Amino acid sequence: MTTRPWNERTATQIVAAIAAGTTSCEAVMRDCLERIALRDGEVHAFASVDAGRALAAAREADRATTRGPLHGVPFAVKDIIDTADLPTEWGTPLYAGRMAGRDSTCVALARRAGGLLIGKAVTTEFANQHPGPTRNPRDLTRTPGGSSSGSAAAVADHMAPLAIGTQTTGSTIRPSSFCGIFGFRPTYGRHRLFGVMEAAGSLDTLGLMAHSVEDIALFNDVLLGTAPVPVARPDTPPRIGFCRHVWDQVHPVVQAGIEAAVRRLEAAGAHITDVQLPAEFAGLTDAHRWISSFEFVRTFTWEIDHHWEEISPGLRSGRIADGLSCDMERYMAATALAARCRAQLDAEWPDCDIIVTAGATGEAPVGWNALAGADLYKMWTALHLPTLTMPALTGAEGMPVGIQLIGPRDADRRLFAYASWAWEVLDPAG
Amino acid sequence: MTTRPWNERTATQIVAAIAAGTTSCEAVMRDCLERIALRDGEVHAFASVDAGRALAAAREADRATTRGPLHGVPFAVKDIIDTADLPTEWGTPLYAGRMAGRDSTCVALARRAGGLLIGKAVTTEFANQHPGPTRNPRDLTRTPGGSSSGSAAAVADHMAPLAIGTQTTGSTIRPSSFCGIFGFRPTYGRHRLFGVMEAAGSLDTLGLMAHSVEDIALFNDVLLGTAPVPVARPDTPPRIGFCRHVWDQVHPVVQAGIEAAVRRLEAAGAHITDVQLPAEFAGLTDAHRWISSFEFVRTFTWEIDHHWEEISPGLRSGRIADGLSCDMERYMAATALAARCRAQLDAEWPDCDIIVTAGATGEAPVGWNALAGADLYKMWTALHLPTLTMPALTGAEGMPVGIQLIGPRDADRRLFAYASWAWEVLDPAG
Repeated sequence: MTTRPWNERTATQIVAAIAAGTTSCEAVMRDCLERIALRDGEVHAFASVDAGRALAAAREADRATTRGPLHGVPFAVKDIIDTADLPTEWGTPLYAGRMAGRDSTCVALARRAGGLLIGKAVTTEFANQHPGPTRNPRDLTRTPGGSSSGSAAAVADHMAPLAIGTQTTGSTIRPSSFCGIFGFRPTYGRHRLFGVMEAAGSLDTLGLMAHSVEDIALFNDVLLGTAPVPVARPDTPPRIGFCRHVWDQVHPVVQAGIEAAVRRLEAAGAHITDVQLPAEFAGLTDAHRWISSFEFVRTFTWEIDHHWEEISPGLRSGRIADGLSCDMERYMAATALAARCRAQLDAEWPDCDIIVTAGATGEAPVGWNALAGADLYKMWTALHLPTLTMPALTGAEGMPVGIQLIGPRDADRRLFAYASWAWEVLDPAG
Repeated sequence: MTTRPWNERTATQIVAAIAAGTTSCEAVMRDCLERIALRDGEVHAFASVDAGRALAAAREADRATTRGPLHGVPFAVKDIIDTADLPTEWGTPLYAGRMAGRDSTCVALARRAGGLLIGKAVTTEFANQHPGPTRNPRDLTRTPGGSSSGSAAAVADHMAPLAIGTQTTGSTIRPSSFCGIFGFRPTYGRHRLFGVMEAAGSLDTLGLMAHSVEDIALFNDVLLGTAPVPVARPDTPPRIGFCRHVWDQVHPVVQAGIEAAVRRLEAAGAHITDVQLPAEFAGLTDAHRWISSFEFVRTFTWEIDHHWEEISPGLRSGRIADGLSCDMERYMAATALAARCRAQLDAEWPDCDIIVTAGATGEAPVGWNALAGADLYKMWTALHLPTLTMPALTGAEGMPVGIQLIGPRDADRRLFAYASWAWEVLDPAG
């Protein structure tokens, strides 16, 4: 073992080290809390941390006789996800101090597996556009991306090896790409969202963040409430479909980086084809807009009717105005298009194992535009597909950019297998 | 106008009478509260009622200058649906007195439209099998059916003209059929469920209860957050597909009643065909079991881990044991079958406008088996179809039994139109 502190290790490494007796749950938690104490005054990844409680839980875990697959691993959760012992404030002063009284399903499953909640990560207001205080740990003048801003920043800055976010548009893949970590949005519908604030129920999923594909796979099984299955490398290199989705919005340096990465995957044995989805799919970017905004304004009917003045002006004139402008016919047409395209992909997936595209349209911009480059994500999200971003690229200004891999619905485990293969080829440190 | 009290009128009649100045919101609310005072000591439809607050809200509505489409109509909601001003206790002493702090989406939308919350209706424990105290208002020795027991009993006993329940298996259609009212489960995914306790997220929907198809349609539009569209009678009688689903479980008197009803619909001009779904669909009854129980035990991870002793023995050895016995592979196979069958129906609906089958396998049984006859509902629920039951039949012991009409996904409004036509033919009072 080197002298790297435990907060810089992956969850998989931490679990192995605790099992081997090389370290303790308390030592791991202490390193994470020290990192938070050192850095969070600038990064602002956390909305709340109870260090005393987290340390006590770690010491209790060290005394425990049964050990789950996440035993002793600190994890952060987005502050729209209910927890029994820390407030859940949805990124709005309206819910300052709100106590849910119970753990959401995902938090309870993570704890059952031995994971240790370290704190609640900052979210944008109602997981929408108005940013929280979080800064990008790679460059404090830049946005970490949103809406799972704090979750991504906490993992990227090694305050916790794992974090749970959510995604309704690109709220997990974007900040993961901007902060230089692995981010995963699972197939829609697989994880229970009970105790998670709804945004647009037809699109919402959890989002998982970590420092390796193996950690994502481990965390994903835990949050499904099933025994973890190790990532199996594929027997043969994948057939990769390269999709230059909304390519005119992607920064030229990112375009070039992905083209080069695809060539390296080809050199390593992957079979590359260009993927163009049917013409009808072009309508999904708009369809996502109407589905998400129509549902969002209904989700928050109570807040709109009773607390209008406490909603940020940007949200009122942005997402809410958009949702109010959409009538039932437009919403149903958008919903029908999305269902049709999903059925088409279910019936006939392109001739490849995974699709590759950009993880973001560019680097994290300077400033606080947490939702930059949203068009990139809308189609994939509306298709309910599992997608994973890996920190494989560097942009023109030295910030990280992800490569995004997308698999068929419910083929999340195969996606991990191909991602693991691809990362061995693309790992900048490899 | 007759001297019938206002609590015995439909929502549509109440809205018209208030608009015409024939009555007031206060007078309507008073009649409903008097009925509750008279009867709820025996029926036990309500978990909580705040009569003072309800009357104050009614008086305030009488002073209001803007009037929504549900102006002055009292409505009850199942006690797993959050309300800002009454507790939401999920049918378990574990959550006695639990205050959500805000209205769920459906309650907020009903109130925005002018509806007046009259109280929280009894649910079975966690909307599952363990019954609450509610009795069938048609015969106090019998179950009202569950899990939306109090919602159905409140409407059937004229304590409120409208109620919101939920359905994960048959929790709206069953109690509506047992209590002799109209019940509607909408297409899965259309109504926002934010603030509604989750049971099995892949199956949960709201459930609407009322005394007419027109009331259901009105309430449905309100809960979708869209301007109500009156029910349009179809230009021609419908093509009806008669489906003898799980017919061996249906009581012979109900079988005969439905056969006779179908003949009357035919005599009125409907074109009748026998519908047999593809062989693969037979697996959906089992698939529903695994999807619902696998998800249920994950939904309540926190309660299972922290409050095991406070969960009823029947739930622990029933649904929870069932869910724990189901592994990921079985769950995913069930999920895949359901998705495949839905896609098949989306692509090729049987050659009819609506499907007709039983609303329950028989009359409400004597005793407290709230979930009797569950197999009837599992396939339709897993298919995500809109279904509506109408109180058209009488069983061998004089209790009501429903006829169930089922339409294609997202054709909820067409289903109302055909139901309205069918009710004109079948109305026992007609």
